[in-house]
Amino acid sequence: MTKRKAAGTKSTSRATRPVKPSGPSPVAGPDAARAAPERKALWSGRFADGPCESLKAIGDSLRFDRRLVFEDILASQAHARMLGVQGILGKKDAKSILVGLQSIADDLEAGKLRVEGADEDVHSWIERTLTERIGEAGKRVHTARSRNDQVATAFRLWIANRLFALAMEDLRGLQAALVDRAHEVLGVIVPAYTHMQRGQPALLSHQILAYVEMLARDGTRLGAAVDAAMEQCPLGSGAATGVPYPVARESVADDLGFDGPSRNSMDSVSDRDFAVEALAALALLQVHLSRLADDVCLWSSSEWRLLELGDEVSTGSSIMPQKRNPDGAELTRGKTGRVIGHLTGLLTTLKGLPMTYNRDLQEDKEAVFDAFDTVQTCVHVMTDTIARSRFRTEAAAALLHRGHLLATELADFLVGKGVAFREAHEIVGKIVRTCDEREIDLSDLTEADLAGFDRRFEDCATALDFQSAVDRRDHVGGTAGKRVKAAIKAWRARLDATS
Amino acid sequence: MTKRKAAGTKSTSRATRPVKPSGPSPVAGPDAARAAPERKALWSGRFADGPCESLKAIGDSLRFDRRLVFEDILASQAHARMLGVQGILGKKDAKSILVGLQSIADDLEAGKLRVEGADEDVHSWIERTLTERIGEAGKRVHTARSRNDQVATAFRLWIANRLFALAMEDLRGLQAALVDRAHEVLGVIVPAYTHMQRGQPALLSHQILAYVEMLARDGTRLGAAVDAAMEQCPLGSGAATGVPYPVARESVADDLGFDGPSRNSMDSVSDRDFAVEALAALALLQVHLSRLADDVCLWSSSEWRLLELGDEVSTGSSIMPQKRNPDGAELTRGKTGRVIGHLTGLLTTLKGLPMTYNRDLQEDKEAVFDAFDTVQTCVHVMTDTIARSRFRTEAAAALLHRGHLLATELADFLVGKGVAFREAHEIVGKIVRTCDEREIDLSDLTEADLAGFDRRFEDCATALDFQSAVDRRDHVGGTAGKRVKAAIKAWRARLDATS
Amino acid sequence: MTKRKAAGTKSTSRATRPVKPSGPSPVAGPDAARAAPERKALWSGRFADGPCESLKAIGDSLRFDRRLVFEDILASQAHARMLGVQGILGKKDAKSILVGLQSIADDLEAGKLRVEGADEDVHSWIERTLTERIGEAGKRVHTARSRNDQVATAFRLWIANRLFALAMEDLRGLQAALVDRAHEVLGVIVPAYTHMQRGQPALLSHQILAYVEMLARDGTRLGAAVDAAMEQCPLGSGAATGVPYPVARESVADDLGFDGPSRNSMDSVSDRDFAVEALAALALLQVHLSRLADDVCLWSSSEWRLLELGDEVSTGSSIMPQKRNPDGAELTRGKTGRVIGHLTGLLTTLKGLPMTYNRDLQEDKEAVFDAFDTVQTCVHVMTDTIARSRFRTEAAAALLHRGHLLATELADFLVGKGVAFREAHEIVGKIVRTCDEREIDLSDLTEADLAGFDRRFEDCATALDFQSAVDRRDHVGGTAGKRVKAAIKAWRARLDATS
Amino acid sequence: MTKRKAAGTKSTSRATRPVKPSGPSPVAGPDAARAAPERKALWSGRFADGPCESLKAIGDSLRFDRRLVFEDILASQAHARMLGVQGILGKKDAKSILVGLQSIADDLEAGKLRVEGADEDVHSWIERTLTERIGEAGKRVHTARSRNDQVATAFRLWIANRLFALAMEDLRGLQAALVDRAHEVLGVIVPAYTHMQRGQPALLSHQILAYVEMLARDGTRLGAAVDAAMEQCPLGSGAATGVPYPVARESVADDLGFDGPSRNSMDSVSDRDFAVEALAALALLQVHLSRLADDVCLWSSSEWRLLELGDEVSTGSSIMPQKRNPDGAELTRGKTGRVIGHLTGLLTTLKGLPMTYNRDLQEDKEAVFDAFDTVQTCVHVMTDTIARSRFRTEAAAALLHRGHLLATELADFLVGKGVAFREAHEIVGKIVRTCDEREIDLSDLTEADLAGFDRRFEDCATALDFQSAVDRRDHVGGTAGKRVKAAIKAWRARLDATS
Repeated sequence: MTKRKAAGTKSTSRATRPVKPSGPSPVAGPDAARAAPERKALWSGRFADGPCESLKAIGDSLRFDRRLVFEDILASQAHARMLGVQGILGKKDAKSILVGLQSIADDLEAGKLRVEGADEDVHSWIERTLTERIGEAGKRVHTARSRNDQVATAFRLWIANRLFALAMEDLRGLQAALVDRAHEVLGVIVPAYTHMQRGQPALLSHQILAYVEMLARDGTRLGAAVDAAMEQCPLGSGAATGVPYPVARESVADDLGFDGPSRNSMDSVSDRDFAVEALAALALLQVHLSRLADDVCLWSSSEWRLLELGDEVSTGSSIMPQKRNPDGAELTRGKTGRVIGHLTGLLTTLKGLPMTYNRDLQEDKEAVFDAFDTVQTCVHVMTDTIARSRFRTEAAAALLHRGHLLATELADFLVGKGVAFREAHEIVGKIVRTCDEREIDLSDLTEADLAGFDRRFEDCATALDFQSAVDRRDHVGGTAGKRVKAAIKAWRARLDATS
Repeated sequence: MTKRKAAGTKSTSRATRPVKPSGPSPVAGPDAARAAPERKALWSGRFADGPCESLKAIGDSLRFDRRLVFEDILASQAHARMLGVQGILGKKDAKSILVGLQSIADDLEAGKLRVEGADEDVHSWIERTLTERIGEAGKRVHTARSRNDQVATAFRLWIANRLFALAMEDLRGLQAALVDRAHEVLGVIVPAYTHMQRGQPALLSHQILAYVEMLARDGTRLGAAVDAAMEQCPLGSGAATGVPYPVARESVADDLGFDGPSRNSMDSVSDRDFAVEALAALALLQVHLSRLADDVCLWSSSEWRLLELGDEVSTGSSIMPQKRNPDGAELTRGKTGRVIGHLTGLLTTLKGLPMTYNRDLQEDKEAVFDAFDTVQTCVHVMTDTIARSRFRTEAAAALLHRGHLLATELADFLVGKGVAFREAHEIVGKIVRTCDEREIDLSDLTEADLAGFDRRFEDCATALDFQSAVDRRDHVGGTAGKRVKAAIKAWRARLDATS
Repeated sequence: MTKRKAAGTKSTSRATRPVKPSGPSPVAGPDAARAAPERKALWSGRFADGPCESLKAIGDSLRFDRRLVFEDILASQAHARMLGVQGILGKKDAKSILVGLQSIADDLEAGKLRVEGADEDVHSWIERTLTERIGEAGKRVHTARSRNDQVATAFRLWIANRLFALAMEDLRGLQAALVDRAHEVLGVIVPAYTHMQRGQPALLSHQILAYVEMLARDGTRLGAAVDAAMEQCPLGSGAATGVPYPVARESVADDLGFDGPSRNSMDSVSDRDFAVEALAALALLQVHLSRLADDVCLWSSSEWRLLELGDEVSTGSSIMPQKRNPDGAELTRGKTGRVIGHLTGLLTTLKGLPMTYNRDLQEDKEAVFDAFDTVQTCVHVMTDTIARSRFRTEAAAALLHRGHLLATELADFLVGKGVAFREAHEIVGKIVRTCDEREIDLSDLTEADLAGFDRRFEDCATALDFQSAVDRRDHVGGTAGKRVKAAIKAWRARLDATS
Repeated sequence: MTKRKAAGTKSTSRATRPVKPSGPSPVAGPDAARAAPERKALWSGRFADGPCESLKAIGDSLRFDRRLVFEDILASQAHARMLGVQGILGKKDAKSILVGLQSIADDLEAGKLRVEGADEDVHSWIERTLTERIGEAGKRVHTARSRNDQVATAFRLWIANRLFALAMEDLRGLQAALVDRAHEVLGVIVPAYTHMQRGQPALLSHQILAYVEMLARDGTRLGAAVDAAMEQCPLGSGAATGVPYPVARESVADDLGFDGPSRNSMDSVSDRDFAVEALAALALLQVHLSRLADDVCLWSSSEWRLLELGDEVSTGSSIMPQKRNPDGAELTRGKTGRVIGHLTGLLTTLKGLPMTYNRDLQEDKEAVFDAFDTVQTCVHVMTDTIARSRFRTEAAAALLHRGHLLATELADFLVGKGVAFREAHEIVGKIVRTCDEREIDLSDLTEADLAGFDRRFEDCATALDFQSAVDRRDHVGGTAGKRVKAAIKAWRARLDATS
């Protein structure tokens, strides 16, 4: 990501020629294709009969690859511009293509045009529409390229744009919501859990910031996936071996914001590593969301009562009138299977494919589209859930007096008296057993009680104080109040700086 | 499956009251919801504010669960009928509900009505539509049930209906196409491969029937998945603990064709085993299709030239005019990742869910819908590919004279002369090495040549004959002509009997 | 499973000639191979040089396939017996082979012999050991078979034996432990949860029985996997096309307990459906264990305190002396990923494999072995966890008075007064809101309080009673005491009958 | 990776204090534990009874985590050194610990000591062994840390060391073997395939370099995974909240080569992102190996005959004496399922885990260990396969004259004459159809024949020449001879520079 940002011209080129949002608005409904005029495939010359229904059903991709329409237009423009400069196309044709493509992009954006019809894919749709608008010249846009390098280029641009935005906007939004909550509840002590068992006292803010850290790594990974997508520009690889024209691949690559052209045409048309990297980054992000979601489910249960879900972020039951269910969190957790499934699926699809392009690769897009949509929706849901719920800080204190949270403190107190930690551990372990038998908590004991167990416990008051226990963890990464405060401040600065 | 067919009344009840096809036709496009009037959730009583946009986006399921509309109506009818009989609803209300639901089903089927609107899910849509049609009584249809048992019931019915049809129709269609081809090419000898290396001569028909066997196991598994779905009827389980009404669960179960009511309400609302079983059966079927697809790709390559793809089942290239690509087979192979991904995904979603119903379970439907659609489409594609291509039997002979296909025969010939197999193997292995050095095939050798290597090869003519090699495998499952002929006959009888 | 048990002769044949346990005891440590004498592969004749180190490292399978040793001996005995009867082997050779194989089996069982050495796989080891013991005749055991049909047969037997035992013993052990606990806590009322939120009152026994139901489906699936493994015997399929000998495949199949010989030799050597089915059954079983495990984690938390883990089934912390962690349950939950991963892995391995046998198939065994071991260990861990922990029934009551568990009762009460359920739901929803504002539970309200909200609540005492709420769910599958009692009785009978 | 190398002191610190290889040699066999003395867990104080057999079976990890022994010793030394400097331990104790740990490492390396016994895990083994050697001071090594931060640190070091070596040595070895072959066959023209159909002529070297490119991306990803592992040092996070001692976390982190200490203790003990990143990088690398493997299988088939496998890298059949199977490639392809399965598995394990450390996380290690071993072995196998086989360049020419490889050239020739590409495509498509009907190849046509189809084909000789077709693709990434030569030179320089 940093590298991307540092890449002056390139990020400028992308910034000044922003790819339009390729969301659902400019595209037609799934049924639209039916009414459209009979298509003619780009490759029909050799064939006496067209494809049968089942082949069209499995092969036609306009239904989903229309999401690439703006990226494909952008790449086609860069390609045509270069063809003109190199004299591969006449200046007039090149100009005509550029203007024609821009008019299509403008009309799509204005909602005057929709990507629909019986065309095989978005590339065929663009070429047909272009030719309808500018005549024969439209047929020349495909000079010196193939759909194999074309689709790889457009898809890379789509992924880079979307993942960049996901990292810079959506993810930061969730981080900011968490940091706000962490700030809000500063000072509130809760149990830190390991094995879902209460372990030691910690600041609630400290735990909230743990998620912010997780998500920061996701941001880094998304950035790396953007970099991977934008490293090598496939255009010019042709069907697999390159193109027999004096193309200027570097200038096209530069024009589109890539680091450079791809180094091997055969690799370039068969490479989907960038899609796998995107899915891997999305899958791990979703796993993190699922962990936060699970904690939200626990916190909002009747057992914890630590989080009161806002009305807008909970739902009821059709039969139980009292219910206030954390559906958003549950669905976020549940959808993790789906995103992991997409990653598994694409890796499986790629397994054992011989060189170079095989049609199996078409499976890359729906997986990435759905994974992206899913993750983005879940980020929004979790952001709303965090922003619109209330930590019942008044409940926190009640959670501290069960679970013998101060056991470690007592052991460490003995260590301070020169006892080896192993022995201290054993002594306190036995005191805990006694407490359990008496059904009391360690925090119910007095110094005197403790001294009864072991003389060395005299003056152990600070070991019996939750606040002291928290404040003793006073080092980078520890839960001490001033450390957590500093972390909040650092996060705010970091989030402000880059947004 | 057999059990299912044997289950007299039940399969009759399903046959005479067939569930309507729940395909895409009666449902609205994805954007339809936008124009619809403001919804009111079934559970809004307790809430001051409605769900925020992100929660609606992640939670609303009408977009996909409308595919259950006919099954849900059917189940609601059975439920209402029972409520009437038991006196839980008044006779008039029950009658009114039954008539109202039927009118909705009829209108949907006639295309006069579409499942669209701002409703949360298909259940809410049906209840709202019903109430609009029959007034207050419509609100009573939800008596003694919850969406938790309702959706589990409708989804089971959907899976059972679809998988039954897939097994009985689509899969058999592919098997029939394969058997036809096997019949057509009877007598043609090709190399049987192991490790993608030519091994021994075999009938092409024998290999084709191998796929028929694979698919037969798939049919059995789909049938088992149908049985699993139809074993226990969830209706009456309520939200999780049952319902406080004198319901007659047995009669509802029987009415809908289930083996009986579920035995434990808490298990029943949280159980998605039937969906996993459906996905597991679909995934393995898809893996089999991918194996057939890979062989189609090999056979239709310039290297094999054993299969000439029909125009209708191949596509061209946008740049290479000579191409005739097996896209259908490639996509079938590629989509295997997707279906495996859905299975992985649902299992992952279910992992670690506490009792009972959690909203995570909503993830079951899209996975099953997409897996089903994918597999069905691929079955059709492969059926067309097999039916509309031609085995170039004239090319088969050319494949036999490379790969030393008769090596095993020669070894077995020596065994017949009393040589231990291990030794015979070694002797022939050395002859093969010599052939390789001379760049000739074992089948180019004469009896005399062989006798030159080892005296015991005298009179080994039959060991050098491809037809004899095939016919010697004369046992159940072997490739001998009469065995393969018998297998074809048996398959035809089996496919005729059950279709 | 039922089919299997009904299959008289077959299960007898398996019962009277029980396959020996193929556990770790008779086999050598992983390093044992190093010291062994130089091997000579079964196929070395053609090759000037042996395989390089890396190929041996990746290809040699003795390290793990030695677990098949007893099954492979059993199948070899059946094969040799048939060869003798058919006159393919001389009577003397056949006898010698049978006796030799038995001596190997006996010595392995007695611990006098270990499966170790530089052999490529267990099949080579057996043949070498046999030949060392009985001389030349040992080399004849491989007549009329190939490793391709041989390994498929042995692996099917292993799976069938192990899954049968897992279902009949281990799984039933866990079910019995659960039924015992359900019996023990009969009458104890706890909240039933949906969405991890308290929903309605239910018997704790009812929830415990829900797991018993889940596991019953697993038993059925394991049984189906056993049936799938034992349907078609591959022996006689040879390398891929059958064998050129007058083999009696039916008698071998019958001898080993299969339903019959495989119907197509090419399918037979390349089919691993039975391994996938085994993994699918194991994966879903593990998912169920993970759900039980998650509930154990919740129940044993400080928040629930419903389950007190026995010392033997919990562990401590190296640093926090008070900890009592449910490690067994956590590891069971965690290992679900592993088993799902094995299923995903094998399906992926099978994707796109051309016909017939490819070495990729060797990946089937480690996946199944590890999945089986993992699942079996987890069943034991969960059995111990359930058997050696104590439900703190004294804590149950405390869980009832938060979460407005009686809301559904009040709504249903109004329905009894003629109010439509939708309206009743809304009325109670508003009362709940008021309670929340006052920080009280619905169960804290009196009839008078309720009548203050709505006149129709007069005489609603039974709607405010937890026991009545439970007992009203009085239908098959409901939580009413007598239904749960009947279910326990039925389960005990079922578990006794088949054990 | 680059970042890693740039990080002066750190990589120096790792270079000068190299972590010992943690391979299998210094560790005991799996059965070793049995004979060991009764263990005492680090946490036994509170417990009346020890863990039952099943819990030990599932929980004890010494069997596999002993692979971390050197890394754990290294981290313990850094920890103890800091404790001494900070005065948390007395100078004498610290010194004693450092010396004791070093003696253990030395003895392990010398083979005088093995990691075996009844200890729960490698951490317990080290502490026990240390205490046996240096007495009470040994018990003090665990001061100010927990196993939670300890294991995360050791595992990060292990992954970083191993992945670094895999990228720098093994992977480069395979790349070098490929580059050598590419150099060797420079000039040989073969068909480039798309859809497994012959497409256009290309240099065989160009295709071979495509794999080198793929693997280069893998190297980058492995490097990124190393960086991810070495970013934040967990030590000092304690059980979850930090430690109540004046620790100097920065110095420990620096000492071990980390970028710095972790920023949040709760995140730090529950974070396994680095393990997922390692698995994701390994899985994609394995997918690439599977693609190369599949091409090896195709090339070495009787149909292609392009690659002659060396004896050392192929195996035979137990029954077919002529076989020369590419087992190494098949197994490499097959094992892809396994590695994908490990990635799927760990992601699934992490799904929905609440904060912070849960024992489920123990599942991270076996997955990574097995994935690493598998990938490393497969890299070696493919390296040997490439290095020890021979491209049968004499066979290449035979592959060119079928498949109409020059069709694109002819179309492009027409484009040069001013025909729009779409029209040119159609014209050539029809010529191809005619050729197919006549059973001839496009390359069999003369200029005159072509002019008969379309006048504009006059003087099209260069369009009918394979060499010209190749050389026309003369741009970065194209297959022209001089471009491929330059690529080979660049790769050699790159591989030399960094090795």
